Amino acid sequence: MLIVQKFGGSSVANADRIRNVAGIIAENYLYGHEVVVVLSAQGDTTDELLEKAAELNPSPSKRELDMLLTTGEQQSIALMAMCLEAMGLPVVSLTGWQVGIRTNSEYNSARIRRVNTERLRRELDKKRIVLVAGFQGVNNFEDYTTLGRGGSDTTAVALAAALHADRCQIYTDVEGVYTADPRKVPGARKLDEITYDEMLELASMGAQVLMNRSVQLAKRYGVELEVLSSLVRAPGTKVKEVSHNMEEMKITGIAKDTSAARVTVMQVADRPGSAFRVLNAVARAGINVDMIIQANGRDETNDMSFVVAEQDVEAACAALKQRQAAIGFQDISVDKDIAKISVVGAGMMSSVGIASLVFEALNDEHINIQMINTSEIKISCVIDAASADRAVAAIHRKFFEN
Amino acid sequence: MLIVQKFGGSSVANADRIRNVAGIIAENYLYGHEVVVVLSAQGDTTDELLEKAAELNPSPSKRELDMLLTTGEQQSIALMAMCLEAMGLPVVSLTGWQVGIRTNSEYNSARIRRVNTERLRRELDKKRIVLVAGFQGVNNFEDYTTLGRGGSDTTAVALAAALHADRCQIYTDVEGVYTADPRKVPGARKLDEITYDEMLELASMGAQVLMNRSVQLAKRYGVELEVLSSLVRAPGTKVKEVSHNMEEMKITGIAKDTSAARVTVMQVADRPGSAFRVLNAVARAGINVDMIIQANGRDETNDMSFVVAEQDVEAACAALKQRQAAIGFQDISVDKDIAKISVVGAGMMSSVGIASLVFEALNDEHINIQMINTSEIKISCVIDAASADRAVAAIHRKFFEN
Repeated sequence: MLIVQKFGGSSVANADRIRNVAGIIAENYLYGHEVVVVLSAQGDTTDELLEKAAELNPSPSKRELDMLLTTGEQQSIALMAMCLEAMGLPVVSLTGWQVGIRTNSEYNSARIRRVNTERLRRELDKKRIVLVAGFQGVNNFEDYTTLGRGGSDTTAVALAAALHADRCQIYTDVEGVYTADPRKVPGARKLDEITYDEMLELASMGAQVLMNRSVQLAKRYGVELEVLSSLVRAPGTKVKEVSHNMEEMKITGIAKDTSAARVTVMQVADRPGSAFRVLNAVARAGINVDMIIQANGRDETNDMSFVVAEQDVEAACAALKQRQAAIGFQDISVDKDIAKISVVGAGMMSSVGIASLVFEALNDEHINIQMINTSEIKISCVIDAASADRAVAAIHRKFFEN
Repeated sequence: MLIVQKFGGSSVANADRIRNVAGIIAENYLYGHEVVVVLSAQGDTTDELLEKAAELNPSPSKRELDMLLTTGEQQSIALMAMCLEAMGLPVVSLTGWQVGIRTNSEYNSARIRRVNTERLRRELDKKRIVLVAGFQGVNNFEDYTTLGRGGSDTTAVALAAALHADRCQIYTDVEGVYTADPRKVPGARKLDEITYDEMLELASMGAQVLMNRSVQLAKRYGVELEVLSSLVRAPGTKVKEVSHNMEEMKITGIAKDTSAARVTVMQVADRPGSAFRVLNAVARAGINVDMIIQANGRDETNDMSFVVAEQDVEAACAALKQRQAAIGFQDISVDKDIAKISVVGAGMMSSVGIASLVFEALNDEHINIQMINTSEIKISCVIDAASADRAVAAIHRKFFEN
């Protein structure tokens, strides 16, 4: 069996952690598996390098930033190789260049174009454990690139796809994907399985176990992922196309996102195309808009609300004000103290009454719903931020704790 | 004019030092020169990485050690690039792989086989300052290699040779090559020029301004070197084939080496081939022997002394004892408290009486000479270590301070 394993920065932060991970790798190798391991930079290495850079240049070029940052992962693979050597195991470490990860030239957030598996296969055929520097590749100019946030996950999935791996394990500091944040909801349960789409919805809702990009890549190439802990030896959560318990479990998880803000455009003239003009102004500023509602006003005008990421609020307001006359509205108000609660589950497609159960849970707690949005596998509600944890707990009780 | 400049680890140890070096680079670039810069790893980076490695494996493979160590120089070039970018200068950093430095597979002490200057030329044609990671290359298997001690000097000389550079400047923390160690001998003078051979003799005698390998390479390809300080703006010392002052100055410099030890093999049977058997035993253990003397003994035996590097003493004694019966000797004694004082100068070839002046200087100070060795351009004396500094000062006075 060919296994691709990925370990994040906290899993290799120091010598003890490295030895712990080496134990996991060794176990799989000694079971007779072919093992390809993707590593991130140790603990705070990336932040330390960024600090050094900032001392010299507040806005360095992305190319040189990638030249600097790729050294972190290279150090991780060399150190892990030495640790496995000390255990008497055959091992070889390879950088993104050596492993043949070719990307486009979007420095800092490059996309993988292709993976040349020749060297990888050759090393595996020599019965070596292969350690690969995550997060990095090279472009067609033979310059170093990095894959952006969660890049090592993407490396792991790309290698698993290219090698047709039997397993792709993403080791993190949590034991898997939960029905809700286990630090906040005592009854939260670890899921055995979850579909790609459910994972995507949960990830985009702030449950950052896996970055969306790696899940999208896994879905596209049919790579079955397993999210598990490097510190606790226990089965984790499998991320796959069809989940076995799809029928029995109507919803998979509950997530909250407090990094969103509500923008309300007040007294928009009630004439054809007003909504389009409002949304178009924001979209042209490169800002993603989520959850739109339009309230019927008292007079000839309507109020329009939508949700954007907190960091985009200023830009959104500026874009609207610039076109205030053309759009025709009175004022803008912003509320950053909101939370978006999302209930995710592929099972809700074939089920009725999920939404009403969610509303019932919130009503029981006297929590006011400001906005609602539904999709095939998700129901999202905007509520005030202060009630967020209480809302998640209430919904969780309704669905998971009978 | 095409200039290759090399800056060592202490010259780029922190942000201030990097800015200082950036100033030197910028100055040359703004004069209209093409500038290729070779950098070492920052200050203690290499030692810190070695410490991390030692924590995990007391004897890691050389391949993985090179994988680890090459990151240090890569960080230096990225940081320097950012600093030059902040000054508004066009710059690109390149690792050993990118710059096309191909080596053999002797990890930790690889030899450069060839330098592909295509990318270098392309970047220079774009009017960019090119920063190159010193000390590293890649072998034919596309694995990272390092060039061993003083490797960045070697990188600089190799690039200067491949690019037919007009100048190759080696910036260090001293202002040039001196007639003796200026920290010890107050009258020591900075040399304007020195020949490759003189530099080679001085370097091997512990005056570690330049590693021998880079000087040998410079000599072979006729690359004129200049050794100068990155902190003091002043002309340094030129290292070249023929020095202008060869005729007037009979000797160039005086160096001491306290890292040697004397091994005396006592009462070696006085029969044909004894000396050969002694030296052969040591040579077969892979140990270099320097300065051999044979004293006529009282009886049918001789005492034989030779000098080896201090770290080779144990291995040399072991090799001899293993063959004690075959060689035929009584005992071995070791003296580590010795110093080798060397007087170097191409001018002594055509001059007489140099040796007697050296002996006279030592005699004046009542310093006993234990062993003597002479070559075309060097006279070396072994004396007790405690007298070393006094000996250097006395010889220096005799030749340089009239």
